[in-house]
Formats: sequence, C-alpha cells, structure tokens
Amino acid sequence: MIVIMEKDYLKKDLNLVIDRIHREGLRAEPIIGVERTVVAVVGDITEIPEMKSNLEETPGVAEVQRISTPYKLSSRQVQKEDTIVDVSGVKFGAKNIVVIAGPCAVESEKQTVETAIAVKKSGAKVLRGGAFKPRASPYSFQGLEKEGLKILSKARKETGLPVATEVISPEDVELVSEYSDILQIGARNAQNFPLLKKCGKAKRPIILKRGLGETIEEWLLSAEYILEGGNKNVILCERGIRTFEVATRFTLDIDAIPLTKNLSHLPVIGDPSHGTGKRILVKPVAKACIAAGADGLIIEVHPNPEQAKSDSPQQLNFSEFEILMREVRKIARADGRKL
Amino acid sequence: MIVIMEKDYLKKDLNLVIDRIHREGLRAEPIIGVERTVVAVVGDITEIPEMKSNLEETPGVAEVQRISTPYKLSSRQVQKEDTIVDVSGVKFGAKNIVVIAGPCAVESEKQTVETAIAVKKSGAKVLRGGAFKPRASPYSFQGLEKEGLKILSKARKETGLPVATEVISPEDVELVSEYSDILQIGARNAQNFPLLKKCGKAKRPIILKRGLGETIEEWLLSAEYILEGGNKNVILCERGIRTFEVATRFTLDIDAIPLTKNLSHLPVIGDPSHGTGKRILVKPVAKACIAAGADGLIIEVHPNPEQAKSDSPQQLNFSEFEILMREVRKIARADGRKL
Amino acid sequence: MIVIMEKDYLKKDLNLVIDRIHREGLRAEPIIGVERTVVAVVGDITEIPEMKSNLEETPGVAEVQRISTPYKLSSRQVQKEDTIVDVSGVKFGAKNIVVIAGPCAVESEKQTVETAIAVKKSGAKVLRGGAFKPRASPYSFQGLEKEGLKILSKARKETGLPVATEVISPEDVELVSEYSDILQIGARNAQNFPLLKKCGKAKRPIILKRGLGETIEEWLLSAEYILEGGNKNVILCERGIRTFEVATRFTLDIDAIPLTKNLSHLPVIGDPSHGTGKRILVKPVAKACIAAGADGLIIEVHPNPEQAKSDSPQQLNFSEFEILMREVRKIARADGRKL
Amino acid sequence: MIVIMEKDYLKKDLNLVIDRIHREGLRAEPIIGVERTVVAVVGDITEIPEMKSNLEETPGVAEVQRISTPYKLSSRQVQKEDTIVDVSGVKFGAKNIVVIAGPCAVESEKQTVETAIAVKKSGAKVLRGGAFKPRASPYSFQGLEKEGLKILSKARKETGLPVATEVISPEDVELVSEYSDILQIGARNAQNFPLLKKCGKAKRPIILKRGLGETIEEWLLSAEYILEGGNKNVILCERGIRTFEVATRFTLDIDAIPLTKNLSHLPVIGDPSHGTGKRILVKPVAKACIAAGADGLIIEVHPNPEQAKSDSPQQLNFSEFEILMREVRKIARADGRKL
Repeated sequence: MIVIMEKDYLKKDLNLVIDRIHREGLRAEPIIGVERTVVAVVGDITEIPEMKSNLEETPGVAEVQRISTPYKLSSRQVQKEDTIVDVSGVKFGAKNIVVIAGPCAVESEKQTVETAIAVKKSGAKVLRGGAFKPRASPYSFQGLEKEGLKILSKARKETGLPVATEVISPEDVELVSEYSDILQIGARNAQNFPLLKKCGKAKRPIILKRGLGETIEEWLLSAEYILEGGNKNVILCERGIRTFEVATRFTLDIDAIPLTKNLSHLPVIGDPSHGTGKRILVKPVAKACIAAGADGLIIEVHPNPEQAKSDSPQQLNFSEFEILMREVRKIARADGRKL
Repeated sequence: MIVIMEKDYLKKDLNLVIDRIHREGLRAEPIIGVERTVVAVVGDITEIPEMKSNLEETPGVAEVQRISTPYKLSSRQVQKEDTIVDVSGVKFGAKNIVVIAGPCAVESEKQTVETAIAVKKSGAKVLRGGAFKPRASPYSFQGLEKEGLKILSKARKETGLPVATEVISPEDVELVSEYSDILQIGARNAQNFPLLKKCGKAKRPIILKRGLGETIEEWLLSAEYILEGGNKNVILCERGIRTFEVATRFTLDIDAIPLTKNLSHLPVIGDPSHGTGKRILVKPVAKACIAAGADGLIIEVHPNPEQAKSDSPQQLNFSEFEILMREVRKIARADGRKL
Repeated sequence: MIVIMEKDYLKKDLNLVIDRIHREGLRAEPIIGVERTVVAVVGDITEIPEMKSNLEETPGVAEVQRISTPYKLSSRQVQKEDTIVDVSGVKFGAKNIVVIAGPCAVESEKQTVETAIAVKKSGAKVLRGGAFKPRASPYSFQGLEKEGLKILSKARKETGLPVATEVISPEDVELVSEYSDILQIGARNAQNFPLLKKCGKAKRPIILKRGLGETIEEWLLSAEYILEGGNKNVILCERGIRTFEVATRFTLDIDAIPLTKNLSHLPVIGDPSHGTGKRILVKPVAKACIAAGADGLIIEVHPNPEQAKSDSPQQLNFSEFEILMREVRKIARADGRKL
Repeated sequence: MIVIMEKDYLKKDLNLVIDRIHREGLRAEPIIGVERTVVAVVGDITEIPEMKSNLEETPGVAEVQRISTPYKLSSRQVQKEDTIVDVSGVKFGAKNIVVIAGPCAVESEKQTVETAIAVKKSGAKVLRGGAFKPRASPYSFQGLEKEGLKILSKARKETGLPVATEVISPEDVELVSEYSDILQIGARNAQNFPLLKKCGKAKRPIILKRGLGETIEEWLLSAEYILEGGNKNVILCERGIRTFEVATRFTLDIDAIPLTKNLSHLPVIGDPSHGTGKRILVKPVAKACIAAGADGLIIEVHPNPEQAKSDSPQQLNFSEFEILMREVRKIARADGRKL
C-alpha cells in the first residue's frame, strides 16, 4: 500500500501516518520527493481491511493506493494452473470448448425435452433452462419453479445431458441442488452476498454471471465469496454489461474474456444471447467469444422462439443453433481446440 | 402498442400480425404509409405480457413499440396524489423534508447511541445503521447482524428516533422487521426479486435504493413488486449510478429526482454519501438533491469517520453533519419547505 | 412517424396535431385506443426534420416516435449490396480481410520504414502512422506533422504499401490528402462536423472511427455527412467505447461489428489496440473481431513499444504482430475468408 | 510516480527500472516489501511525459501510478484563489451567480431580439444563441452562420447584453470573435485540439463544455490547452454525460460541479437544458446546480419552443424562464449569494 501525502501536509500528519502503520505491526517507508511525499506500507495487510480507509482519513493524506488485488483465491497469482470444473465428465476450462444450450425458461416437458434432444444432436454438452426466472416486471412470467426442476430432470434422463439452472434465493440452493448439476447465479444476483455464501457451501459447480454494472474486479470478488466458502468449482460467465448503447440489449465485453482468463485461473464462458439481445447477433458474437479464448458458451434455444414466454427476441430455433454450432466448431479448430 | 413492419414485408406477414392481435381479443388498425406500414394494437394489453415479443417475432415485423409504461401501481397515471409514508409520525412525501442519518455500519452500542443523539440534535428524524452489510469483498467487515439490530433498538429507546436498516436476504425480513421501523433494500439487491416479494408482505415501510446499473423504468418495476405484494409504503432512494467517471465513487443522477417524482407518486430521497463517495461532496450534493425536489436525504454520520469499519471516506463527523443540516435547512426554506 | 397522445389530452389538442400534419402536406391517421390515442403520420418526412419536435411540442402530446432510421445513404435499406472501398487495389468490404498496421505515431524515418517493412512481411496491406496526434494533454507528444507525412510517403515508396493517417482539422484535409492514401477521422473527432463535411469533398477514402461516447446511430449519421458530401468511400472502425469498466482503456463493442454490417453496406473494421489498451488483449480481441465478421483490423505496431512516444502499453512489437497475423489468418480461413 | 513490480520480477528488471529513472536525472527509491516491491520516482517528471509508459514497458513492472495531476495551469494546487472571468463587467466566478440565456439556434432577428429582451428582463446577464450548429444529422438545421452572428450583434445593441455563441472550427475563431463576447466550445468539440489551441490564442473568454464521454481529468486537460495558449479566461460548463439511462437525454453530473470547483480555480456553470433534455426537468436541475455551488447557468429560451428549429423539447418559453429565475434566485440567496 502506498500513502500519498497532500502537497501542504504538516510534519505531524506524516508522523501520525507512520504511527498508524507501526501500530498494526507493519513497516513504514517514507519517501520525501521534490513534488510529493509518499509512504510505502511494507508487510501483509490482507488481514487489516480497514487499514486503507484509516490511512485515507488521516489529516494530510491525499490518497492511498493498493498495490495488490483484493481477491486471492480466484487470482492467478495464487494458482497458476487453470481450474478445470468437471460436471459428470464434462470439463470446463480444459482445452475443449463446452456449449450449454436450452430454453430461456422451462415452459413444458415437451418444449424442454424436445430442445434437449435437438441441442444434444448439434453438440451441446449441457442443457440449460430456467425454472426460477428473475424478471424485471412482476407481471412477467416468473417460471414453473419446482415443476420446472422436475422437467429438467426428465430431460436429463432422456438425453444424458447434465443440467444447469438458475437459483435466485439462498433458501432454494438445496432444492435446486437436488435437481440440477450446475447452479447458475444470474447477473442481477451477482452481488447477492447471502446467495453467494450459500453457493459456497453447495455441492454443485456454480456458473457465476457478471453483474450488469459490475467491474471485473468486483466479479472476481463475488467469485471469492464462493471459493472462500469451500466450493472451488466456479465458472465465470461474461453476459454483457450496461452501456450507453441502445441498439443492443447489453454490450458483451469481449475484452473481459481474455483479461479475466489472465487475472484468474477459473474457466470463463460467454453468453451471446443476453450479451446482444438480438437473434441475428448471437452467432457472430458466439464465434467472437471463442476466438477471444472463452472456454465455452451458453446459448438460448427454443423450438419456437416467437412463442417463447421470455427472451423471445434472442432465442435461436434448432436450425439456427445447428448452424451456429457448425461455425463455432470451425473457429474452435482454427484455434487448436475442439468442441 | 404499435407494430412497425419491415419495408419489404409480405402481405401474408401483415395478415399474420393482424391475426395474432385478433386472437387475443384486441383490435388491429393497420396504417399503410408511403414509407412504412404500421399496425396499432387497440385494447388493454397489460394482461398479455408476452404479446410484445410474439409480435416482434412475427416475420416481416421490424419493431414493436410500447406506448404505455410497464409499471402501474407506482405510476402517477394511476394515482395522481403523492403517497405519504408515515413512520411513527415521521412523514415522507409530505411538504416537509426528512433526513435519515447514522453510521454506515453499527459497530458498537456506544458508537451508535452517540451518533443517534448527535444526529437527532442536528435535526435528523430517523436513525440509520447497517447490521447486515453487503460488502464487495468477503474479507471486509460483514456487520454485527442480530447484535447490531439490538443496538439499533437501544438507540431508538434512548432517542425516540425510528430506525432504518438494511435487509439483504428474504429469510431475514421478519427478524429485521422486529427491530427496525423501516427496511432498506440496497442498490445491489435492487433486482433481488425474492427479497422484493418478501418486502411486499412486510409490515414495515421500505426504502428502495436504485440499482447501480438500473434504469428508472426498472427501478419503478422493482417498486411494483413491493406494491403488488400489498405494501404501499415505498420510499425511493437515488444513490448514484455507475458511469465512466472515475473521480467519484458513483454519479448521483440528479435528473432522476424530479423525473421520478413526475412519473411516480412515491416519495423520493437522495443519498449523497454513496452518490459521491467523497466527504467534501456530501454537503453540496445534499443541497442539490433538496433543490431538485427530493423529499429527504439519507446521510452517513460517524463519531470518528477515519476509524469507521466501512465507507470511511464518505462519512461525516458530527460537526460536518451539523453544518450540512444548517445549509440544507436554508435551501429547503428557499423552496418553501421545512426540514 | 407515430404521435402518442397523453392519456388526458383534449379534443382540440388532437385537432391541432392533425392540423400540423396536414399543413406539411402529409396524411394523419388517428387511432382512438382504449388506453391511448395515437396518430400515424403518413408521407415522406425526411425533408421536414423539425416536424418531430414540432409535434412533440404540441399540447396533449406525450411522445413522438420515428419509425425509420434518420440516416439514408449509409443504410442497407437504401443499398443492399456491400460497398467495396478500393485503395490502390486493396479492397475493403470484399470477402478478403485487410489488416492495417504501423506505429501509433510516426517518430522517425527509421522507425517508420522499419515497421512498414516488418508489417508488410507479416501480411499487412496498408501502413498506418500518426503525423498529427490528438492528445488529451497539451504536454504530450503532438506528432511530427508535415514532417511525419513525408516520412510516411517514403515508407510507401520503400514498401509499396498504401498509407493511412489521421487528419484532425478541416484545414489540413488537402495537405494530408497529398501524402496519404486514406484519411482517418479519430474517435475524438467523430462528431467534428466541419471536418466530416470537408472529408465529404476529399478525394481519398475515409476511415471513420466511432466516437467513444457515440451510439451506432450517431456513428452512421457521422458517416452520412461524408457520403452526403459526395465521398462514397467510407470505412467504419469500431475502436471501443467508454464504459464503467476501468480494467481496460475502453470496451471494444463486439456487438457493434455484426450489427453495423447489418444496418449499413459500408465496410467495418476493428481496432483492438485502442479497444483494449493492453498489449496482452490485442491478439485475442483481434481474432474476435474477425470471427464477428469484421472486414479488417487496424493494429498498432512499433519496433520498440516500450520506447514509443505514445500508446506505449498497447503497441505490439514485430514478433507479436507476426504471431497475431498467423492466428488471425486461421480464424479468417475458418470463416471462409482470406487474409 | 510509483513503479510497482510484478511479484516474480527479476533482479535485473529492478536494476533496469532504476537505470531508466537515473538516466532522466531523477532519483529512484526502491522499497522491498513482504508482498511487493515498489520504486518511488523522486523529482519533477512533468517535462518527461513518456516516462510513465517507458517504465510500464520495462520487463518485471506490473503497474506505474502517477501521484500528481496531469493538468497544471487549471489546477487549484497551482492557483489557490478563484479565477474571475470578466465579460464586459459581468463576472463569472465571483460570489454572484450569472445566468446566460437565449435560443438554442438564432433563427431570425425578431426571435433573437425578442428573446434577448425577455431574458434580460428576467435577470439574465448574457445572451446565448447558436449561429454555427453542430448537428448529429446532416439533414438537420445547421444554423444561419455569419448571418446569425450579425443578428446576435443586433440583439446586443438592443439590450446591452454581452453575447455567447459556439465556434465549431478553428478557421472560424477570428470571425466569431469579431461578433461574440464569449466563444463557446461545445461538448462534441471538447477534445477538438486544434480548436482548443486556436481558442488559447483568442481574445475572448471561452465557455468549455464537458465532452459527453469525457472524464473530469480530461476536461481539465482540455482547459489546459486553452490556458497554455495564453487565454486565462476559461469558464467550465457541466452539460451532462452519456450514461445507460435512457429516460433523459444525458445525465447531468451534479457531483462534477463541486468536485471540479475543488480541483480547479476556474468558474463552473451548469447547463440543465442539455443535461436533462426535458423541459419539466430544467428548473429543478437548474436549482440543483446552484445549490451544488455552480457559478452560473446556461439556459435555452425560445419565444415558441414548439416551433424551434432545434432542441425543441428542452427550450423554455419566457414565462417558464421567468419562474425559473425567481426560484433560482431564492436558492442563490439561501446560499448567501446573489443572482
């Protein structure tokens, strides 16, 4: 940590800064510059989170800058090698690319099983489908809930595909874990800390979507909540952030994919369905995610997108998905990877 | 609702659009223009939320535009007169301005009671204090939880001030309701729908903070979840949104204050502590909120901000708060209101 | 155009709306709905730009919505087939991918010629290099100006590569046109309308970068200024927008690449150097741009990035560029295109 | 400047860093910490702008942090006392509040003179009016240009009000200076550096609007271009930034007003017309700007807003402006200032 003093600080302010550092058992190294004076804090400060603000509050202090990342367990500095998340033999974070596909919402057994069969045929390795739906409006379809979970189980039985579904409340973590192979934490719950903590104790791997107003650093801190609880199986998912652009539903942050893989050892997948919100953009942006180094994709597929109860404008039909898979496969191969 | 056809739509596409509208018992009014053809949907569509996307998905359709707001109960179109939220005699949304003040986090009985006495003396009408703290990092102070609630109760007993505190999980709504006069939903839970629903059934008024990536429309839809559950006592709180500006912690959206009051009958307060993140900006931005028409303020105050366990750079000490109140009072009077 | 009336509009307001539409020689089609009344404006309104606001200002009017794009010449509705921009035989917008590469700033003849030779060897088809540098700070290196243009000419002579360089003032358009094969309009000048108009009269093709706070619609309107002036050779360049994320310099809007190609017939290239601002991200994001359908790339390359006078952290050295080209080529091929 | 080394840096990397610092005649102070090693650069680096990136590029370096602001002349660290900009006796930055008002665009002599008389009567001290209009679309009204400047002169003659108008091209600075008392640089030209430089040589005070995607630091650097050219009379104008919120045209950054006044000695005014884009929000946000400490306002006023050729939805009519002035005056007085 580096403490930068105001230009016109008083001698006693500097002494107070040094005092406060010493009081915590750390070493203080003041550097008196021509233009500015700074004090370097030497020692391990991870156990003293309030230190930064204490110093910021000391009279005569202009700024305090951290020089290490606030997340630890999710950091590549702590673990060099990639984490591989294994879901019933499907491996995220290994060289192969994994595609998760299925309807935005589970609407019926027929719709779900039909979709599961179709996406499996095209090469998807995991089935997705929402049973608990977080919707901006209370008047929108809220999901089939437990009934939806049962349908997902049936679809797994029919196809052998492991299942991923969203959990939106800490109280539901156990219930959803019974039925689903992967728990998904959605963008709107990216900083729902009780939910993150509960998922840290869950037996299932977690897909952690990035919040729509969340920085990459905060995203990794959210992952930290899960890792810190003991659950090491976290898959990060970039799904678009909120920007001023109104022509797309969100802006998929393509930079975030290679950057997050650089900062963290966790697998990173892309969600071009939510990241664009427009059917015609899903395929090109899916290809871009893979070219940028994503470990997989999550894609919304529906037998009749125009009749879907949610996210209708961004779901693909079976043949659109088949074409997407064919093209993504080529990109993966060009990149020396398999799908 | 207005359906705008593609330039090169086919006759059968138009017929399909009209069909789909009729099937829902609504009237379709096609207008064949020189440049474009549009179809107006006449009738009440609030009960048919999937209608918009169904039409968007029809071949030949370029766009579908809503012409009424998706929220109802929170809309001023539905209720012209201001909602007044009464908390033990303290009225939000009436002509008087209400200031809520207190520490970011409850740290000890001494700190909390001392602060309660000080802010009351300066004119605050409600005490705030966090017992359950949503923190970006799992390594940061997470609050005293139930112990904190008890301390808040003591502070109420000592000062007579009603108490507002945050609830971060649906499971805690009942517990927090026992101790607190107002429940606060924080920015990171602005779209935590299970929590919103639970608060819709709570006996306590709710302060609903705007999410940091949430549009005003979505914010009112979040309020709608609470109102729809039966709890009519919602106070909206603008607390800053995420923008590209890095010199402040968030950007307080001053436009949102008069606009939201125009769109909705609910009281709106401002949070200049989080909306700026910098002590020197709290007072001027507090004054701005009142001048823009806010019904109140929520301000972080701490006996020794530099030793606070959270939000240290933005908390005011007692004399800073006293000065803020004095200046805010003058602005309120200039605006024909009282504090 | 669609005029949406307030819920409580008066009969005479509606008549005034209809009157104003008729006065312009257009047809008005009122539709009286259960919840809302709307009036459709039938006829060509492109010549009456003030019409929208006139109607918005009429008492009783809630909103006026356009139903066609405000840009024409750049729209794919007006021209279905792709525009191909030919620069001395190098074709942008055809199936082949074109890579422009070179230093951020021309610093010396040696640096520029050396780079030109190296990037040509790796497969670049156009040399870039800044002679007039728009810099946020007046204390930063401002470019070699005319001297820089001469150096670029020499590099062209040595290598045969056509040259692209930025023009930052209308007064310089002619001078820069003498030396450069392509004129570039930078992100900070994306809405410098006198410059756009002047470039509309220039003899050289234009690379039009998207402004860092510019929507896609505004970007196409900026292109419209050039096309409307008579210069049909416009290449659009997505170079990252400003968002709340601070871990990257800008956020490259990958969605914008396929979307803009869908809305417009103009070629679209990507700039992963500025769009990320970080050397390690340039290669993966370059690959993503091509996978998303970009017609080319513009990449900053420098013999010794660490000694560059500008944009040092994002320039590649020769061997990094060579590797980038090799990997981008594979992606291009996988996509059925050549580089 | 502080150089932060990677965790696994090599001894020779550190030596190279120290070398590079010494080579520039500066002192290097390495601090070997438990977790990290940092090197403080001691000495004046303002003349060595490339230093930061040179160090960033040195192998083994993780990050380089500046510890002083990149702007100098506009900084309050350099000049403690407020700059007062005097325009024919009207003083910006003194205790009094100055309101600039007038039409978005000069449309005719009658409209302009009429407005000048009206706004003067209500207390405005400067007349605004656009002669050169920067418009997103080439099909929108582009202003009366020189004819407009002459009309402004007439309005000044009639009313005695000094005049402010926008200049959009370096070539026009002299022409506009002949007719106008203040030159305005618009948001879209906030980083038009040739224009900024030319205004640095102009004889007239400058209103510098903040760019819609510009950080406060960049804004002050833009001011620096003008100050550095010798023109000390710069008035900063916060006019709203681009955010994800779509309910308003822009988001007026209220935090920026007190923060910029804290960082800089230059006067700061607010533009609630552009900062909101909605007539009903202009008055409350104008009041907020003053309460936040703005030195003045710039407000769009038109005899018949609904017939305005530009910015129709945000212009006030005369009686709306009169009411605004009355309420703003009360806020100013409550704040111990006059209007």
